Amino acid sequence: MVELAPEAEIGWFDQRHKPPMIEAIRQAQHMRWLHTGIAGLDFIPPDLLEREGLIVTNGAGINSSAVAEYALMGMLTIAKDYPAIVRAQDRHEWLSEPPGTRQLAGSRALILGYGTIGRLIGQQLTAFGVECVPVRHSAKDGALGPDEWRGRLDEFDWIVLAVPSTDETTGMIGAKELAAMKSEAVLVNIARGDVVDQDALVDVLRDRRIHAAFCEVTTPEPLPADHPLWSLDNAHISMHLSGLSNTKGRQVAAERFLENCRHFLAGEDHKMISRYDPKRGY
Amino acid sequence: MVELAPEAEIGWFDQRHKPPMIEAIRQAQHMRWLHTGIAGLDFIPPDLLEREGLIVTNGAGINSSAVAEYALMGMLTIAKDYPAIVRAQDRHEWLSEPPGTRQLAGSRALILGYGTIGRLIGQQLTAFGVECVPVRHSAKDGALGPDEWRGRLDEFDWIVLAVPSTDETTGMIGAKELAAMKSEAVLVNIARGDVVDQDALVDVLRDRRIHAAFCEVTTPEPLPADHPLWSLDNAHISMHLSGLSNTKGRQVAAERFLENCRHFLAGEDHKMISRYDPKRGY
Repeated sequence: MVELAPEAEIGWFDQRHKPPMIEAIRQAQHMRWLHTGIAGLDFIPPDLLEREGLIVTNGAGINSSAVAEYALMGMLTIAKDYPAIVRAQDRHEWLSEPPGTRQLAGSRALILGYGTIGRLIGQQLTAFGVECVPVRHSAKDGALGPDEWRGRLDEFDWIVLAVPSTDETTGMIGAKELAAMKSEAVLVNIARGDVVDQDALVDVLRDRRIHAAFCEVTTPEPLPADHPLWSLDNAHISMHLSGLSNTKGRQVAAERFLENCRHFLAGEDHKMISRYDPKRGY
Repeated sequence: MVELAPEAEIGWFDQRHKPPMIEAIRQAQHMRWLHTGIAGLDFIPPDLLEREGLIVTNGAGINSSAVAEYALMGMLTIAKDYPAIVRAQDRHEWLSEPPGTRQLAGSRALILGYGTIGRLIGQQLTAFGVECVPVRHSAKDGALGPDEWRGRLDEFDWIVLAVPSTDETTGMIGAKELAAMKSEAVLVNIARGDVVDQDALVDVLRDRRIHAAFCEVTTPEPLPADHPLWSLDNAHISMHLSGLSNTKGRQVAAERFLENCRHFLAGEDHKMISRYDPKRGY
């Protein structure tokens, strides 16, 4: 791939193992259109994305429902402490008391990032009787603005991170934000590992200053086997598998590529969908 | 409790361990009102429920949202094979491929039993993009009638059992019904163990003629440690914990008891809520 890259005019990159993919993108100096089925392009250095004349399209939205399903699964399994039930079944032990007694019904969720995935999660949580408050660029229709949510973190049972990874969102949940959450709070990160200060998260989980975290994403990925996050019983690591956990994703991704390919070949760049915008960073 | 029972005029029975509770009910010959926070009264022999002049009220609806949340958790964890992710975390192993790739979105569910719990499950599944078909006493508004669903079992990805335990529902899912399901079907039983022919279920799970079963309830309970269901990797046993998995249930149950108590003391039996109806059997 890396050897042939300089000849490519069109590149479709979807590898889970990132280093050779980045190197191929770097070598592809004649590439006019770069496509990926992945939604967040933060894994590609910005100078490679923002080359003169290069069109970049991504997979934003394709895996949204699969990712949202993981978020809800994480919240339900933490509410009921389902891992304890799985381990009890492995021991053939009938538990007489429930390991987890939280309910989604009647709880409150703050949803940071209200794109396709955040909105899906909001709809699903609402069906469970969860009061959802989104954070949006402008505070309206019950949403909190970018400057408001930090002061109200202590009002929520669930803090759901569904933001894109940009300069603005890197480290947005640090020691200060974690300290502001109530002790029953659960952090759900289906965004990117770097949105959270992971060392600070390990500290608050270890000291049980928040209830738990569902970490679909971590820093780095894969998480090294000796990382302390693995061993915390209130850290639930789902290994960035959510977007891959669907059977139709590749078909939808292929359809999007073909549609964009038709527009590209016809010289109708403006009709290509899911274009990366360097100004927004996603 | 058993010793004092003959003196009782009012009995509130909520024990998880059933035999002494049944014996106390049997001894309570002067009881005029029997109350329980439990929804299904099939654990009490009918002759004890249907004694002359005895008012019986139950906890139907109190734990509905907790039970529905378990059903959805069971479906999501089976779709993604979350137990495999839990066990991988226990080994500190970052999985590179998702163990489960099913999505709720775009799938179809048959919901047998459309009381409070069945309707909640239907609402929640709909928010995930699942097409839900309920079975009701009369076929209308898209529902199937009692005589229709067996012939259409092969159309559904999820078969959800939310029926009360009555003579009519005992064994309603037997070898014939299991054989009619498609190989990708998942059986979700949050009703009662005896609704399913459990030996037949073990057979189809072992031979992988259906994908999996979520068994919130079993026959008997507790399930003996040497029962084959424990060891099947496609049987997920949640130990009848769903209704207990909430923090507000006891408070709501107490409020219902007090409200009924006021009506009982005022001699206004007709105002008492959640009365057991011997004709329906629940």
